[in-house]
Order: sequence, then structure tokens, then C-alpha cells
Amino acid sequence: MPVTLLEAPLSTPETRIPVADPQAVVDLLGVLAYGELTAFDRLADDSRLAPTLSGRAALAGMAAAEIGHHERLRARLTELGADAEAAMHPFVDVFDTFHASTSPSTWLEGLVKAYVGDGIAADFYREVSTFLPPPDRELVLEVLADTGHADFAVREVRAAIAADSAVSGRLSLWARRLVGEALSQAQRVAAERDALAMLLVGGTGDLAGIAALLKRITAAHTARMQTIGLSG
Amino acid sequence: MPVTLLEAPLSTPETRIPVADPQAVVDLLGVLAYGELTAFDRLADDSRLAPTLSGRAALAGMAAAEIGHHERLRARLTELGADAEAAMHPFVDVFDTFHASTSPSTWLEGLVKAYVGDGIAADFYREVSTFLPPPDRELVLEVLADTGHADFAVREVRAAIAADSAVSGRLSLWARRLVGEALSQAQRVAAERDALAMLLVGGTGDLAGIAALLKRITAAHTARMQTIGLSG
Repeated sequence: MPVTLLEAPLSTPETRIPVADPQAVVDLLGVLAYGELTAFDRLADDSRLAPTLSGRAALAGMAAAEIGHHERLRARLTELGADAEAAMHPFVDVFDTFHASTSPSTWLEGLVKAYVGDGIAADFYREVSTFLPPPDRELVLEVLADTGHADFAVREVRAAIAADSAVSGRLSLWARRLVGEALSQAQRVAAERDALAMLLVGGTGDLAGIAALLKRITAAHTARMQTIGLSG
Repeated sequence: MPVTLLEAPLSTPETRIPVADPQAVVDLLGVLAYGELTAFDRLADDSRLAPTLSGRAALAGMAAAEIGHHERLRARLTELGADAEAAMHPFVDVFDTFHASTSPSTWLEGLVKAYVGDGIAADFYREVSTFLPPPDRELVLEVLADTGHADFAVREVRAAIAADSAVSGRLSLWARRLVGEALSQAQRVAAERDALAMLLVGGTGDLAGIAALLKRITAAHTARMQTIGLSG
């Protein structure tokens, strides 16, 4: 296990650089890397539900961007001396379970799933990134850069609701189910990966800090739901 | 229909630039663009059959490269004043029929399909590109650039044959079936798209020219089969 992340901040005590457990950094990059790989799969699948070839190409292009992010994370894991495959492995089951239990049956369900899921995931990783030392903090922020999917989803879903207002109610229910499933998988990760859980507790300070973080994430989710025309 | 492709060569008679029917150029870019979109789909699908996360990421990365090519072709179609969606549309059915009738059931079948299919397609498009005026000729050659898939397939398939020699016979049969299906779909395209067929006849000169072209493509295919350890 490389110790450079622990040593670097200690050797420059004048700057306030977070001291992250190397295992937590590897865990975080691993969960992100596998998440990007499943995001690729999901977008590639959803692209086939597209009503036009242009919509299909748009989603395929976003899938391609996710793989670019995956490759950046994999390269950083290798640089840290970690085995990328081993780093992703602990998270395969939670993601696969989540995706298997929330397989979209329509083009719009697929768009809402990506919009809601990526939004919450990005908010969460962005919060956690502040607990990381600089190179990994920047990398996490970089791979979270929106691939254009959010705007695309908002456009398509709002147009569908404008054409048939009943769509909003159905998709709102779908979004609530997605959040429920995502939360139950997130709890599994927190229970099973001690280093990640400690990073969160250490970074936020205490349980009140975690509660405040969850409150911020929930507020951002509610705002996103309103933007796309759904009720939270 | 834009006539710039017909006008440009006439205005510079000192250089021998091929005069291509604009419809043939749009057809060729259209078939290539839709081909790249289905190549993305196929690689994304096959990536799920990968025995390791690294193999899965490798194929997803190649899928991403195909979408990059697709976007280049789509941009050029738009630049030519063509509707990209309309340009691709005539070729949707032949590709979808081909892929539906040759769906790989194993990781190795998927690799062989991509290796054999992309190899023949690239040889064919490369021959046809010489009949195109410069900007489109270069574009076609560029999007045909190997995405690393061929070497990857050769490595994986040869390793599998080394471990179990019976694999070679089974995959050779599979490759022959693929070529048969591809030929029957190619004949459909030639019969239905007059402009493309005329580009081929005009470019090669006559039927003897077409026969020579097919002989070159067959020889290259046989050489590729030997490289990957299969019999033609």
C-alpha cells in the first residue's frame, strides 16, 4: 500500500492539506471507476431506446465520455500502486444490484434514471472530494464534469410532459423508487467499507456534519426534480 | 443536393481529382456513420461478455472511439448540406439484420466477429475512398483507423486456442458464417443504392476491376484469419 498520500501533507505542514487514509482514496477512486463503467453500460443500453438516430448517437456520445473518465481513474489507481481491478471489485455487486432492480423500460425512464442518479452521485462525490488531498480532489471534480446528459434529459422530459401531463406523475413515482434503491445500496457500501465510512465521518467532523451533508444533497435533488418538471 | 463536389474538381482541371456523384458521397458517409453507430452497440454489448473488468473497459474504450468516428462523419454530412439522419436511414435495416442474425454467444465469438467484420469493412471502404475527392477520402481513411481492437482480438483468441485447440475449428466455422451473412447484406446494398453501385463500377473501371477488388479483399481476409489462428 503506498504511503505517499500520508507523507506528502506531513512534509508540508504549513498548508492545510487533508490527510486521507490511502485505502479510503483507493476505495473512492475504485467506486467512481466502476460507477463510470456501469454508467457507460447504462447509457449504451438506453441509447437503443432512443426514438431517433440522433438521440441514439447523443447518448452513445455521453457513454463514450464516461469511459474517458473511467480511464483517467484507472490510470490514477495504477499510479498510486493499486490494482485497478481489485479496487473496483468490492463495488461490483452494489452497482449491479442497483441497476438490475431499476432497469428502465422506456426512453424517458432511462433519461430520468441517469439524471437523478448522476445528480445525486455527483453531489455526493463532490462533497467527499473536499476531504481528499489535491491531485485526487481535482481528478474527482474533473470526472464528475457533466457530459451534457443533464441538459439533454431536461429538454426531452419537459417536452414529453408538455405533450402529456400524466407523464409527470408516472416519472415522479419512478424517480422516488430510484432514490430509495440508491439509498439502500449506499447504506450497504457504508456498512461494508470501513475506510470510506471513516473518510466521511472524519471529513464532516461528526454525525451532525453527516446530517448536514445529507441535507444539502437532498435539497439539491429536490431542486433538480423541479427543473426537470417532476415532484420530489 | 449540394453540387460543390462536382464543381470543385472541374474548377481545378490540372489536378486529377475524382468526380464523385454527391449522392454517392452522402451514401458512403451515411453507411459508414450508421456502421460506426452499430459498431458502438456491438462493442458495448460484447464488453459485457468480458471475463475481466479490464477486458470490459478495453472494449468499452473501443466503443467510445467508434462514436468519435461517428461524430466526425455526422459533422461532414451536415457540412455537405445533407441530413445525417436521412443519410443513415437507408442502411439501418441491412446492419440490423446482419447483427440480429450474427449475435455472438461468447466473448471469443464477439471478438472474432469484430475482427473479421471490421477488417473486411475497412478494406472495402479503403478501396472505395480512392474514388472520392480529397476531403472525404481523408475523412474515410481517418475513421477507419484501427481502434486497437484487432491486436486485442488476436491476443485473446490466440491465447484461447493455445489453451484449447478445439476452439480454432469452432471459431473458423463461426467466421465463415459471418462472411456469408455480410456478403448477402452487401449484395442488398449494391442492389438498392444505385449511386453507391455506380461509384464502385465507375471507380474500378469495369466488372474486371470489381473482380480484382474483391480478390484483393478476399486475400486480405485470408491473411487476417491466419494471423488470428483460424482457417479461412
